[in-house]
Amino acid sequence: MTYFFAKDSNHTEKIKKSERRNILGGKGTNLAEMARIGVPVPPGFIITTDSCKSYSKTKVFPKALDNEIPKQIKQLEKNIGRKLGSATKPLLVSVRSGAPVSMPGMMDTILNLGLNKTSIAGMIAEGQNEHFVLDSYRRFLQMYSNVILEIPLSGFEKIIERHKIKASVKQDFELPLSSLREIITEYKKLIQEKSATPFPEDTKIQLRMAIEAIFRSWNNDRAIHYRRINNISHDLGTAVIIQAMVFGNMQDGSGTGVAFTRNPSTGENILYGEYLLNAQGEDVVAGIRTPSPISALKEEMPEVFAEFYTIQNRLEEHFKDMQDIEFTVQQKKLYILQTRSGKRTGIAAIRIATEMVQEAKIDKKTAIMQVDPASIPSLLTPTFITTKKDEAIKNGNLIAMGLNAVPGAGSGQIVFSSELAAEWSAQNKKVILVREETSPEDIIGMEYANGILTARGGMTSHAAVVARGMNKPCIVGCSILNISEKDKIMSIETGDKKISFKEGDQISIDGSTGEIIKGSLPTQSSEIEQYLNGDYEGESKISESFLTLMSWADEIRHLSVRANADTPRDAKVALNYGASGIGLCRTEHMFFSTQRILLMRQMIIASTDEERLNALDQLLIHQKEDFKAIFKVMDGFPVTIRLLDPPLHEFLPQNPEEYKELSKKTGRTEEEIKQRSLLLREVNPMLGHRGCRLGITSPEVTTMQVRAILSAAIEMNKEGVNVFPEIMIPLVGHEKELELQRKLIDDVATELMQKLGQNIDYLVGTMIEVPRAALQADKIAKHAQFFSFGTNDLTQTTLAFSRDDSASFLNQYIDLGIYKNNPFQIIDRDGVGELIKIAIERGKKTKADLKIGICGEHGSDPYSVNFFHEAGLNYVSCSPFRVPIARLAAAQAKLSK
Amino acid sequence: MTYFFAKDSNHTEKIKKSERRNILGGKGTNLAEMARIGVPVPPGFIITTDSCKSYSKTKVFPKALDNEIPKQIKQLEKNIGRKLGSATKPLLVSVRSGAPVSMPGMMDTILNLGLNKTSIAGMIAEGQNEHFVLDSYRRFLQMYSNVILEIPLSGFEKIIERHKIKASVKQDFELPLSSLREIITEYKKLIQEKSATPFPEDTKIQLRMAIEAIFRSWNNDRAIHYRRINNISHDLGTAVIIQAMVFGNMQDGSGTGVAFTRNPSTGENILYGEYLLNAQGEDVVAGIRTPSPISALKEEMPEVFAEFYTIQNRLEEHFKDMQDIEFTVQQKKLYILQTRSGKRTGIAAIRIATEMVQEAKIDKKTAIMQVDPASIPSLLTPTFITTKKDEAIKNGNLIAMGLNAVPGAGSGQIVFSSELAAEWSAQNKKVILVREETSPEDIIGMEYANGILTARGGMTSHAAVVARGMNKPCIVGCSILNISEKDKIMSIETGDKKISFKEGDQISIDGSTGEIIKGSLPTQSSEIEQYLNGDYEGESKISESFLTLMSWADEIRHLSVRANADTPRDAKVALNYGASGIGLCRTEHMFFSTQRILLMRQMIIASTDEERLNALDQLLIHQKEDFKAIFKVMDGFPVTIRLLDPPLHEFLPQNPEEYKELSKKTGRTEEEIKQRSLLLREVNPMLGHRGCRLGITSPEVTTMQVRAILSAAIEMNKEGVNVFPEIMIPLVGHEKELELQRKLIDDVATELMQKLGQNIDYLVGTMIEVPRAALQADKIAKHAQFFSFGTNDLTQTTLAFSRDDSASFLNQYIDLGIYKNNPFQIIDRDGVGELIKIAIERGKKTKADLKIGICGEHGSDPYSVNFFHEAGLNYVSCSPFRVPIARLAAAQAKLSK
Repeated sequence: MTYFFAKDSNHTEKIKKSERRNILGGKGTNLAEMARIGVPVPPGFIITTDSCKSYSKTKVFPKALDNEIPKQIKQLEKNIGRKLGSATKPLLVSVRSGAPVSMPGMMDTILNLGLNKTSIAGMIAEGQNEHFVLDSYRRFLQMYSNVILEIPLSGFEKIIERHKIKASVKQDFELPLSSLREIITEYKKLIQEKSATPFPEDTKIQLRMAIEAIFRSWNNDRAIHYRRINNISHDLGTAVIIQAMVFGNMQDGSGTGVAFTRNPSTGENILYGEYLLNAQGEDVVAGIRTPSPISALKEEMPEVFAEFYTIQNRLEEHFKDMQDIEFTVQQKKLYILQTRSGKRTGIAAIRIATEMVQEAKIDKKTAIMQVDPASIPSLLTPTFITTKKDEAIKNGNLIAMGLNAVPGAGSGQIVFSSELAAEWSAQNKKVILVREETSPEDIIGMEYANGILTARGGMTSHAAVVARGMNKPCIVGCSILNISEKDKIMSIETGDKKISFKEGDQISIDGSTGEIIKGSLPTQSSEIEQYLNGDYEGESKISESFLTLMSWADEIRHLSVRANADTPRDAKVALNYGASGIGLCRTEHMFFSTQRILLMRQMIIASTDEERLNALDQLLIHQKEDFKAIFKVMDGFPVTIRLLDPPLHEFLPQNPEEYKELSKKTGRTEEEIKQRSLLLREVNPMLGHRGCRLGITSPEVTTMQVRAILSAAIEMNKEGVNVFPEIMIPLVGHEKELELQRKLIDDVATELMQKLGQNIDYLVGTMIEVPRAALQADKIAKHAQFFSFGTNDLTQTTLAFSRDDSASFLNQYIDLGIYKNNPFQIIDRDGVGELIKIAIERGKKTKADLKIGICGEHGSDPYSVNFFHEAGLNYVSCSPFRVPIARLAAAQAKLSK
Repeated sequence: MTYFFAKDSNHTEKIKKSERRNILGGKGTNLAEMARIGVPVPPGFIITTDSCKSYSKTKVFPKALDNEIPKQIKQLEKNIGRKLGSATKPLLVSVRSGAPVSMPGMMDTILNLGLNKTSIAGMIAEGQNEHFVLDSYRRFLQMYSNVILEIPLSGFEKIIERHKIKASVKQDFELPLSSLREIITEYKKLIQEKSATPFPEDTKIQLRMAIEAIFRSWNNDRAIHYRRINNISHDLGTAVIIQAMVFGNMQDGSGTGVAFTRNPSTGENILYGEYLLNAQGEDVVAGIRTPSPISALKEEMPEVFAEFYTIQNRLEEHFKDMQDIEFTVQQKKLYILQTRSGKRTGIAAIRIATEMVQEAKIDKKTAIMQVDPASIPSLLTPTFITTKKDEAIKNGNLIAMGLNAVPGAGSGQIVFSSELAAEWSAQNKKVILVREETSPEDIIGMEYANGILTARGGMTSHAAVVARGMNKPCIVGCSILNISEKDKIMSIETGDKKISFKEGDQISIDGSTGEIIKGSLPTQSSEIEQYLNGDYEGESKISESFLTLMSWADEIRHLSVRANADTPRDAKVALNYGASGIGLCRTEHMFFSTQRILLMRQMIIASTDEERLNALDQLLIHQKEDFKAIFKVMDGFPVTIRLLDPPLHEFLPQNPEEYKELSKKTGRTEEEIKQRSLLLREVNPMLGHRGCRLGITSPEVTTMQVRAILSAAIEMNKEGVNVFPEIMIPLVGHEKELELQRKLIDDVATELMQKLGQNIDYLVGTMIEVPRAALQADKIAKHAQFFSFGTNDLTQTTLAFSRDDSASFLNQYIDLGIYKNNPFQIIDRDGVGELIKIAIERGKKTKADLKIGICGEHGSDPYSVNFFHEAGLNYVSCSPFRVPIARLAAAQAKLSK
């Protein structure tokens, strides 16, 4: 089928609105829609996707089109008063693809179709610049040959290079007319040689072959690859749009430009764009001439500007979003070539969405759907002051690039160890922690550092995951770095050059870009964070917009959003960003500070019960203080505390120096300590002696932790704080594990509450992070007051992917389209999601009102949040700084259902 | 309720047969049954389990019993012509527990109840030896006090010790009458002191308290623990049996004995047992007098023997199994005290079962159900010549005990490395491989060794699992061993003694017992194996029985049984033992020999494609020869070949010496090799870059393997061998992995078959060993021609248990009753089994006739085989030596359904 469009036409109205995109493609739909509402678009017609589908199937050009195309061309010629291939007022057309889903750059486009000897003469006669006409012809020949005849470009490039040398010019556009004429002759000769037929002067043949080429391009390799990666159906097909060309370079009173209906950087409601007089679109892109700001058009062509101003306003209102508009003025006549939703920064997105609601142009729901949750982190992280960074790069201080794992800007002195990070931090020095890769022991150092840089690891490595949780700028996998932690030297070799940095040297890292820069660059914390902390002076439009949008999201969403927080500071941030509780408080993170790790080690290597209980008693004192501080901040909100999870060997010393230290403190020999450490090491620690297995084999550890939690809760309760402790058992796979741990907890609680003379409400629940637990959820639910999915570990076990090791094959897997995404970032619906659904169904069969949440890394990924909403979870829990993402994503999930 | 029984009584007939055990308990049922069929049992009555259940609930002695017990006692007195507590012909009774399920030694028993001053006099008057009567009384007092009054035994022991010193005797039975009298007085005083009431002379009180004690003992700690571990319901309750005591020591013409209806060691159909004249059961056990063989009874008491002979025959026929019978003769009158199925060796079990069918005493199905599949390995492994071993132990040559991982006897010279094992083996030396623990590289050494001994690891460690597959005697986890692989010394310190062994010293290990013995003991291969190999001279009853029983099993079973075999030798063994194909041929095992591991290493560290392909080309030649040899042996049977599975780092050198060697051979620097090896190491290799992930990221490896398999198949086919290759892709989790690998395989196959001019039928299937694969089985089945469950890895991932690390908590888990068994030995039905069921259901939804098997360690575990049968699998695959176990278990599974 074909559909004609021109200003005020409404042929496509008969197609159901919901089907238009699939039939006309995205571009065609918008063009037809603009035409319908009276916007001046160059006229043209759309060949619907079914023709392409038929062609893909049969490899035969659809018969019906042989009749329809000439009719549509006639209508087009009539509408615009020009004729294809004519010597007077010749019509040129563009032939473009336009799929139902945007596939930028994946398929072919042919411009200036209709040029031949006759029409060239016609254009020149009409007053077109001859140089421009011939150059257009040359480009048409080249595009046509490449796209349609599939002749490699290299032959054409050789010809043009030869002529550039001959004419002693550097740029294509500098070639003299004489050269152009010779080039055209040579191009035609090349075409005849390569395709065994001469270039068709007949414009009808040109057109038909161009359309067929577009059909073919739907199944070119890169389009197939793109669709596979982006999960786009191969069955959609593309529409083809044949549209009259208009010229912004046709004498005075012509021009071309691009405009956004609002500022795409700041979101300010001011028309924003630029234009060039007497130019074509390509000239704007090529950057040879400097365009003028759109405001200048008001003076140069006041009527045209007034018309454009009205239209852009109308388009924004009509399409209910900030628009990115391309236009051309041909002899004082304005044409809108394209409109689409404009790309924008995170800040702009939030401001535009809220202001458009305030202007009554859209409703709150539309506003919510307009903001990409992924853009939010950019609003909240500190940034380098741009001018300073640009200057540093200009001065050659960019030393390397790594993977941009966590956005944000950080600078400081290089440290190679957690200890030094803590020490220098205490002296108010800013530090960047540089490591080959990080391990759980580095958490303290990461806490103190302004940023983290590693030579190894991918986007889901330990460093990346932990830094993301802390919202610390982080660059990982910068393999060019040579780090000698022993010699305290970091060096980079590039070609012959070798730069070395020693401990204490200043560097700056931009986690948003992966740039590593020599020297210390000044940063500033985000405006919103300053505002939320009460540090921002004056009015903050963006902060107000942010809070407004978040409040709308909260009105809409069903899913609660909690935060993963291990410290009072994190808890505070979480509340700032709207968390309604802590969904995961990891107690082990409290054990890594210098004093406590020693107690922990004493506990682990204890050879008598007394020694072990003594160490535990001292740890209890620390843990209780930790919990009191967290409960205090979280007054009135639930706090889910996970009992000790990692295998014990993670706490043990790893090198002779540490053996010696522990030996000194415990009186045990170094050899004994070493042996004990080696003995506890595991082949597959992920599947080892950890989680509730520790609590089962060492119940005294569970007892200590529960005492610390509940006595802290009771003490804070006595001080008038509302505490809601939820004790969470990790790595349960068998109902009896939970049954035994729960009994232990309840016994300790009963005894403690009697002793302290105060009752307290607490819950006991379990992580669901082992496939067996999901399958046995009905039985496990008997002993659980809540479930919390640990999707990190559940992904590792369900897929048999070690998060730490999967980098070696995962990228290739994604390239091959086996997995569409990194399953540690975006939940694997088919596998892990299936287990989650099974667990929910079975768990609720036992306890209909079971509270169910998720506290893995996926808790703030919008696509995953959408799944959690659909699956009927009660809450997600994520890093404090990612709480706003989750709030917005939860609202979008609700709306998109 | 109570039920009376005596010769020819049939009171229990009214109870439904299927319910008798639950109501009367096992012992009660058999006694009543013997009585019914006219076997002379001492009369008595049974208190049914419901009384115990009621008591357990209410802690109150059931009222109804207060009426019933006196009535039953009266009936009993009348039947036997004796009276409880009487001065003439006193009646003594035993009070025993008898639960529906055997719980040996878990609950209490009281003998000689009814003794008091009056009845003692009565017994002596009747002609009983006074010493015996008083000693019985002393023992009754002690038993009564301990069981019923819960007075600790220590007090009684002190009294008796004192008297033994006083009388200068060593043994209890040597005490003179005077001492016994004093002891009895002192016992009674102690009872009065401890229980605040005198010992009850009233026999009715004695009886009631004894019954109540039995009720109580149902819930004593050890009984509860036993039931938890053995998965016996706590709700069953126990029956109580009150039975007249008979005396084998009552003057001449009395005696007592034990007999088996057939020889329990060999299975020969000859009455087998022993007896003592003028003795009680305890005397036989105590070993003070030497009993006579049962045949001697024929001469001493021909009528009694004749009666017994008829009865034992009758009991065997009636209970349809070889019986273990206790009897007593009291003044020439024969009483059968107990009959039960007799314990027997594996050899005896098979011979008895088949011969009883031949004698038409049982049918084939009963025979099949009578043999415990777990007893089969004992028939097939070599053994030490018993007399020689006993002699060595007597001479103090038992140096240590370890875990008896794989039964069998092996002796030879100690070697500490695989290389030496190979070298010495080539010199026809017998070797025992001794390692701290084994790794995949040791497989070659294990192949050559006569036995394997490790200081670390549990029953499911690498050494244990691999050795089991090879049927090599193996002892693991002998932590007392101090192995220095560097110094080539193994030492054992016990107390002050330290024994050292160096490489080349002789040791013998008995994998059935865990004994490690100094010196070389002679062994012999099993009779069956000699017979199957045609090496056995003369008639072999046991081999014939074995083959007969196996043929019956084959008639009955539905499940096919295949073998896991990697070499032609294994394949041959598999066929010998009745495998109907190879279900798992692990190609990586072929890469560990010296020459090939080098090629493998060259392939892995190759820096150019050329280098890599060159190494692969050479490996191909070896692999092809391997496959040809296997196909030849397996003529007419399918061979499932799994493509490369372990992570590449398992093949790489691990120490400086090996770095150096590889450096020499490849021209790469040692440092380079080391770096590459370190880089490939993984945090969790189990979840790492292995299985089909290798084939996806290095398709050239898959290509090489498929070429080797199919060209071997075609070449053998041309030689007239019937080949059925089945190519199996490991570790698939996503359908696209299988889709891609399958396409690669089909492409290689098409090309190869064209080139070689011969078509061959081959299948492509997948392992299901990752939870995601089970969940996605419907999609995966689209690309699979068969599924094979890898239950080892599926257990690791579903439970999140690393097989290599779980020893640190698994025993405790089993003790606590969390898991009933080691899930790596017996399939976890609730978790792994659930995933298997899901996978089968979903897989068959896509392909109704999908062939499905299992090739994990569970393939020969009878309990697991039962599950696989129920789940509807087509085949199981296990180690060649375990094939007969699986055949029998499969038949039992079918019959027990």
